[in-house]
Amino acid sequence: MAETIEKAKDAVAAVTEQVKNVVVGSGEQAKEAADEVKGPSKSAQKKAEKEAKKAAEKAAKAAKLAAAPAAGGKKQDDTIGLTVTKADNFPQWYQEVVLKSEMIEYYTEISGFFVMRPATMYIWNVIRKWFTERIEAMGVDETNFPMFLSSKSLEKEKDHVEGFAPELAWVTKAGDKDLEVPVAVRPTSEAVMYPYYSKWIRSHRDLPLRLNQWNSVVRWEAKQTTPFLRAREFLWQEGHTAHLTEKLAGEEVLEILELYAGVYEQLLAVPVVRGTKTENEKFAGGYYTTTVEGYIPSNGRGIQGATSHCLGQNFSKMFDITVEDPAEKGKHINVWQNSWGLSTRVIGVMVMIHGDDKGLVLPPRIAKNQVVVIPVGITKSTTPEAKAAHEEQLQSIKATLKKAGVRAVDDLREGYTPGWKFSDWELKGVPLRIEFGPKDAANEVVSFARRDTGEKGTIPIADLATKVPELLETIQSDLYKKAEKSFDEHRIVIDDWEKVVPALDAKNVVQIPFCLEPKCEDKIKELTTAKHDQEPDASVPQAASMGMKSLCIPFKQPKEVAEGQKCLNPECQALAKKYVMFGRSY
Amino acid sequence: MAETIEKAKDAVAAVTEQVKNVVVGSGEQAKEAADEVKGPSKSAQKKAEKEAKKAAEKAAKAAKLAAAPAAGGKKQDDTIGLTVTKADNFPQWYQEVVLKSEMIEYYTEISGFFVMRPATMYIWNVIRKWFTERIEAMGVDETNFPMFLSSKSLEKEKDHVEGFAPELAWVTKAGDKDLEVPVAVRPTSEAVMYPYYSKWIRSHRDLPLRLNQWNSVVRWEAKQTTPFLRAREFLWQEGHTAHLTEKLAGEEVLEILELYAGVYEQLLAVPVVRGTKTENEKFAGGYYTTTVEGYIPSNGRGIQGATSHCLGQNFSKMFDITVEDPAEKGKHINVWQNSWGLSTRVIGVMVMIHGDDKGLVLPPRIAKNQVVVIPVGITKSTTPEAKAAHEEQLQSIKATLKKAGVRAVDDLREGYTPGWKFSDWELKGVPLRIEFGPKDAANEVVSFARRDTGEKGTIPIADLATKVPELLETIQSDLYKKAEKSFDEHRIVIDDWEKVVPALDAKNVVQIPFCLEPKCEDKIKELTTAKHDQEPDASVPQAASMGMKSLCIPFKQPKEVAEGQKCLNPECQALAKKYVMFGRSY
Repeated sequence: MAETIEKAKDAVAAVTEQVKNVVVGSGEQAKEAADEVKGPSKSAQKKAEKEAKKAAEKAAKAAKLAAAPAAGGKKQDDTIGLTVTKADNFPQWYQEVVLKSEMIEYYTEISGFFVMRPATMYIWNVIRKWFTERIEAMGVDETNFPMFLSSKSLEKEKDHVEGFAPELAWVTKAGDKDLEVPVAVRPTSEAVMYPYYSKWIRSHRDLPLRLNQWNSVVRWEAKQTTPFLRAREFLWQEGHTAHLTEKLAGEEVLEILELYAGVYEQLLAVPVVRGTKTENEKFAGGYYTTTVEGYIPSNGRGIQGATSHCLGQNFSKMFDITVEDPAEKGKHINVWQNSWGLSTRVIGVMVMIHGDDKGLVLPPRIAKNQVVVIPVGITKSTTPEAKAAHEEQLQSIKATLKKAGVRAVDDLREGYTPGWKFSDWELKGVPLRIEFGPKDAANEVVSFARRDTGEKGTIPIADLATKVPELLETIQSDLYKKAEKSFDEHRIVIDDWEKVVPALDAKNVVQIPFCLEPKCEDKIKELTTAKHDQEPDASVPQAASMGMKSLCIPFKQPKEVAEGQKCLNPECQALAKKYVMFGRSY
Repeated sequence: MAETIEKAKDAVAAVTEQVKNVVVGSGEQAKEAADEVKGPSKSAQKKAEKEAKKAAEKAAKAAKLAAAPAAGGKKQDDTIGLTVTKADNFPQWYQEVVLKSEMIEYYTEISGFFVMRPATMYIWNVIRKWFTERIEAMGVDETNFPMFLSSKSLEKEKDHVEGFAPELAWVTKAGDKDLEVPVAVRPTSEAVMYPYYSKWIRSHRDLPLRLNQWNSVVRWEAKQTTPFLRAREFLWQEGHTAHLTEKLAGEEVLEILELYAGVYEQLLAVPVVRGTKTENEKFAGGYYTTTVEGYIPSNGRGIQGATSHCLGQNFSKMFDITVEDPAEKGKHINVWQNSWGLSTRVIGVMVMIHGDDKGLVLPPRIAKNQVVVIPVGITKSTTPEAKAAHEEQLQSIKATLKKAGVRAVDDLREGYTPGWKFSDWELKGVPLRIEFGPKDAANEVVSFARRDTGEKGTIPIADLATKVPELLETIQSDLYKKAEKSFDEHRIVIDDWEKVVPALDAKNVVQIPFCLEPKCEDKIKELTTAKHDQEPDASVPQAASMGMKSLCIPFKQPKEVAEGQKCLNPECQALAKKYVMFGRSY
């Protein structure tokens, strides 16, 4: 009799295990699992069927939800783990990673919008805190301007309005009444803020005026949207400052750019190239734009990281922002202005670069959970007392880590196998897994597995407080080095036009001698765009049809432009002025 | 000759002083000042005239700006200091305080919107940090949902859509194209978020789900707007949670309400009454609403402080948010939901309560600058060396304060009298002024003046690190006690209907026995609204025409409703159920 009960228990446990492990994957699977159980007792059989029924209900609910219309007609798949590899289908891989790691939810009500879930907001808040501390030290104050813009303000700067008008969202009605004058949701706040700069800046003693705000802006993109990288609404910070001289403005532009590079390099473990945008790519209405540019190895595309603009005096002339020259009484001068912004795009770049076929890979400095501690080796023959003692020891390991400043969690969920838990935390990108079983306990160690490399090893419990923080810093640094190596190897200097498209096809960005002329840049884009109608060529893969555009003029030139060297565009006769980084890009 | 030069210097200094002190007040005044100077030399006379001209130019510019159309047709006055007293003209006093202390700027482009300047954002960020720490400890995660809403989602809950539809801002166009389906800017996010709660909550193990977001919402009010208190866009946090049972939801509602009371009482030094809203005043679509209610002594009005709602199962039924009952397999139950929000309104309430005829009065805990250190007693006979030594000593005082955790600034601006500086910092509400002159130095003390009471005294330099933090806490506590005394004295229990309106006219809120019936509440409002057409009565002041509405049913009842006690409304025959706080209100 005791044996029968034991068998029944095991059967139930087996079904429960399988049901739990498929979670919402497939009710059918759970049903089969239940059918396979040769019930040693009626009650166990009944219980198993009940479990299976429950799983089937869940699966039906999941299927219903998955069938709901998603952005771009895509369907969401709720199976744990990814269904494609990063190499085989990068776009789908990315979409699955951000969804299944619970960073993003598609906002199915309105296409092109996304929900930022807690896993995302944690990272954004780390960045926000890091950046705020540094700009506060520079003397930048926080402000908050309204989200709406009158067309009158927007139209003051001609290039600016032309740049943003096609993407403006217009509010034309309030309640059931038409507004007398429609208002636009800000796509950026130059035109919202600068009328007040004109009012507040009355003397050179009011300079520099440095304000920053954290908000969301709306750009109703016609292009296909992608979570983080291109959304119709995104979170960002926008800094707007005014200075007495071009020199002072220019210094700040670079100081901010270096902070943006710091967000990528120090927090997100993403290497970037610092440089200036060409005329074609600079901010609409600005004087010059500096940028940090990233690189996505999986498709060889460049991606703009964040931009710090000197607006020159364009806006101060249009918005009448002047002070009396402290060096010459009676002479009024227009102030020099900057604007600079960093958006949630940074998170998408980080995901694309570090993620792998198991899911997200988070750099430790921005990971909410840096370490997960999972009990292993607990079997049904473990006594409740031994299990409790083991879990107590595990709690003490977690406490040691927390005391050492490590963001550690445990996973004591019942009814899930260690293997299932491993997959779950890998999907979510936790940098370091610590496994702790009775054998580890006997040896006074923990076992660990690095998320980035899969490397395994043990650490003496006595050394946890020093070794784990060290290991996390090693992971952070290794992630950066790996990405840097890849960017370095795929940023190719080319002095031969014929090699350009093959280099792009081999997932490189290129640095070429360039005349810096806007029309020539248009031509280069045209020449590198595959025209399938005119030159049908089955050997050219579809993705390669995209032309290249300039990414930046790197501050650090790969080499000097030679005396008399021509622009690389074969149809251009002008002299090259700089090596410019071009690429297919986001 | 030496004497002539000395006189000329003095004359220039005198003019400069006067010019600086009128700043942008009036160019005429500066001109007169210049004219009064009996020039001992041509060059001094010329210089004086130049200064006067400069001042006149500034005045002209200021006048131009002041003449720009402001919200509600109001004009902005740039004179330093307030032009009306709090007692004489409270609305204008308030408007001047928030403008001149540089908390707010009217957004003249679109009426009903305001710019939050750094003085405001500092306070909001203190509140944000305080509140975030506490809700994180409760297990609330941060999220960010899109700002737009489809009408389909909004219409799911009937009362909810009816409550918000009249104030929705509708986006109907993107670029130059009409949207196929217009979208509304969120007035609150229940209908934005809950479709995802339905997706994410699949089992009771997913409960509680607790998310919070910091954002801005738009309610296109038809009523007159007031900075902080009623704006068409405002900053807030909105928490949205789901629970298994009514009891668990109800516990959280009160836990959050207590945090809201903490923001008022502990940070802003503002007393509030905790209670429940009546049916008429509860959240549209909710089950019940709890609230903290404040009181503005200057006009005797009540003001809603912040609300924490239990939504019951209304939304979970409409949005299909269910879990299987853990106590009964196969039975599905709708989750219990809460939503709760606290907005920048809190800052307006604080300004109205503590401010005085000199301007803003900030409680030390939320003041960016808690102490300003100003040098005094420096005259033209002070040698440059003595001045430098004095300022060095002053810097060391500031450093001592900073080291003690006090947010201290100095004011070493040249060309402004100490008196002008005192007024400037008083206007901005800095809680404590420290004056430091040669006499103080000789006695090894500093002189201080409290912003709230004007009380003056000295503190030995050796005791600064302990005495100043103590004094700041005393100021914080005294501000609270003063406001609490006022609220206690003007919250009157009334059991006689005839006494109600006179009590309101005497700037009280009242607590009356009430039947809790919505129709009776409407009637009470009607009965207490002065109908000038029917009862012309010159003795009733204009402001008194406003009827009273219910503010809350205080948790702490002033006394028990007596057996058989009738509702106070003379036209109501029902029994009273509770003492309810009524008042004229914002």
